[in-house]
Amino acid sequence: MYNKTFGFSSSSIMLTDEELIEHTLNKALAHKSDLYDVLWDSMEYSVKAGGKRVRPMLTMEFAKLLKADRSAAAIFGCGVELIHTYSLIHDDLPCMDNDDMRRGKPSNHIAFSEDTALLAGDALQSLAFEIILSDEAISLVGAENAAKAAAALAHFCGADGMVGGQVIDLMYEDKSSTEEVITKIHLLKTAALIKAACLIGCIIGGADDEKLKAAAKYAECIGLTFQIIDDILDVTATSEELGKPAGSDAENSKSTLVSLLGIEKSREIAEKYTKEAISALSVFDGDTEFLENFAVKLLNRRN
Amino acid sequence: MYNKTFGFSSSSIMLTDEELIEHTLNKALAHKSDLYDVLWDSMEYSVKAGGKRVRPMLTMEFAKLLKADRSAAAIFGCGVELIHTYSLIHDDLPCMDNDDMRRGKPSNHIAFSEDTALLAGDALQSLAFEIILSDEAISLVGAENAAKAAAALAHFCGADGMVGGQVIDLMYEDKSSTEEVITKIHLLKTAALIKAACLIGCIIGGADDEKLKAAAKYAECIGLTFQIIDDILDVTATSEELGKPAGSDAENSKSTLVSLLGIEKSREIAEKYTKEAISALSVFDGDTEFLENFAVKLLNRRN
Repeated sequence: MYNKTFGFSSSSIMLTDEELIEHTLNKALAHKSDLYDVLWDSMEYSVKAGGKRVRPMLTMEFAKLLKADRSAAAIFGCGVELIHTYSLIHDDLPCMDNDDMRRGKPSNHIAFSEDTALLAGDALQSLAFEIILSDEAISLVGAENAAKAAAALAHFCGADGMVGGQVIDLMYEDKSSTEEVITKIHLLKTAALIKAACLIGCIIGGADDEKLKAAAKYAECIGLTFQIIDDILDVTATSEELGKPAGSDAENSKSTLVSLLGIEKSREIAEKYTKEAISALSVFDGDTEFLENFAVKLLNRRN
Repeated sequence: MYNKTFGFSSSSIMLTDEELIEHTLNKALAHKSDLYDVLWDSMEYSVKAGGKRVRPMLTMEFAKLLKADRSAAAIFGCGVELIHTYSLIHDDLPCMDNDDMRRGKPSNHIAFSEDTALLAGDALQSLAFEIILSDEAISLVGAENAAKAAAALAHFCGADGMVGGQVIDLMYEDKSSTEEVITKIHLLKTAALIKAACLIGCIIGGADDEKLKAAAKYAECIGLTFQIIDDILDVTATSEELGKPAGSDAENSKSTLVSLLGIEKSREIAEKYTKEAISALSVFDGDTEFLENFAVKLLNRRN
C-alpha cells in the first residue's frame, strides 16, 4: 500500500557513515512526481541546506557501541535529523524568530512561501515517524525496538521536550531569567532531541537501563555545553566567524548564562559538563573515542 | 523515563465509546505543571473545542469488527484525533486560511498567540505518536501491530496524505481546477486521515489484506462524500445552518465539483460513493450497521 524503502545492499558497507546518512535521507525524500511536488522540493531544500548531521552521527555511534544494525541506525538517525530540520523551518517563520537566512541561504519560507514552509515542517515530522516505522526499519531491529525508539523520539521532540523548550524560550525572549530557567530551556530546546538521537541508537541495539541512562546523561551534558558555548561565542566571536549576527542576545536583552555569570564561570560550567559527558561513557564496552572527541570538540568550537 | 498511561480499569467497560474517547484524550493531555503550561493549555483548548470525534469513532468501529481490544482502539483513535486537531490549528493560522473562528470559538492563535498555536500543533502531532506507541498501547495490541498502525498514521497524515492535499488545495485556492484535481484534493486533504482512522482500527485487530483494502475503500468513499456534501451545502445552506460563512467557495472563485458539474450531478456522485462505501463493508463478518448508517448520515447531513 505504501512503504519507504532504502535500497541498502552489500555495497552499503563500503559507504562511510556520512555517505550512508546522505543515502538514507535521499531515499526518505524520494517520491513519485505529483501535483504537490513543491512540498517535497521545500522539504528537500531544508534537509539539504548544509546541516552537519550531528544527530544521526550520534545515533550511529551509540548503535555501534550496542552492535546494532548499521543501516537501521542510519534510518533511525535520519528520523531524528528530519525532526531537527522541521524545527528549524518552523523556528525561522515570521511568527517565531522571523529569520530570513539560515546557514547562509534564504530560509525555507523565503525560498518558498510561508504556507509551504509551515506544511513542509509538518510533513517532515510525519516523515520521520514514517521512515523509522517502515517495514525495512522494523525488519532490521524488530517491532519492539522500533516502536520504543519511535516513542522516545515522539516524547523528546514534543511538548515535554523540544517544543516545550521553544515555548519557554519565547516566553523569556526579551526579559531576564534565572540560571535555572536558562538551563531548563537548554535541556528541552536543544538537549532533548540530542538525547533522543543517543537513546535511539541504544534502544535499537537493545540496551539495558544502565546504558540508556548513561546515553541520556552524555546527551544532556553535550547539549548544555553546546548552548553555553553558543552564548559565549555570541559575545566573543565576530558575525563573520559565526556565520550569523553576533551579539544578538545582548541586543534582544536575552538572559544567558554568560550575561548572568560571566564568560569565565560559564566556560567552567561547560568544562564540568564535558567531563561528566565523557565519564558517562564508561559503562559502554566498545570504542567511545569518537563520542569523547565530539564532546571536547563542542567545548572548543569557534563557530 | 517517560510514559503516558491511560488508567483503564475494569470499570472502563461501563463507559460508552464517546466517554472512553474523552477519557483517553484527557489522559493524553495530562501533564505535570511546568513553565510551559501555556503550551498544554493551548493544545487542550483545541482538542476540547467541540470536535465530533468522527475519526476515533471510526477506529473503534473497525476495531470492533476485528475484535481488537477496545481500550487500545480508543488510544489509537485518539492518536488520529490529535493529528486532526493539529491540522485544524495550523489551517487557521494567518499564513494559511487566516480564520479567526473555529466551531464558534476563537481560533487557537486568537485565543493564545500565533507562535503558541504553531507549536501546539507541532506538539499535538508528536503526542499522537507518543500515545499510540506508549507501553500501554504496545502491551494491548503487540509491538508489530502498534508499529504498523503508527506507520499508517505517519504516511496518511504526511506529504503523501493530508499535508500533500493541503498544498494542492492552497495552489488552487483562487483559481479554477478540474474534476480530477478536486477529487485528488479531497482524497488527500480529507479522506487520507479518515483512511488512517479506519485502517488503524483494522491493523490493531490483525486484519488481512482483503479487510484492509475494504476499510480503505470505505474511508475513501465517505471522505469524498463528506467533501462533496460540504461543497453543496456551501451553495444551498445559510451561514446560520452551517455555523460558518456560506458561499465562501464562490466568493474565493474556488472550483468545486458543484461549480463544475452542478448540484444534481454532484449529489449523484456522492450517492454513488455512499453505495460503494456500504458495499465495501460486506467482507466484514460482524455488525456493520453503525458504519452503514454513518455513511448515509454524511450523505444526508444539513450542516
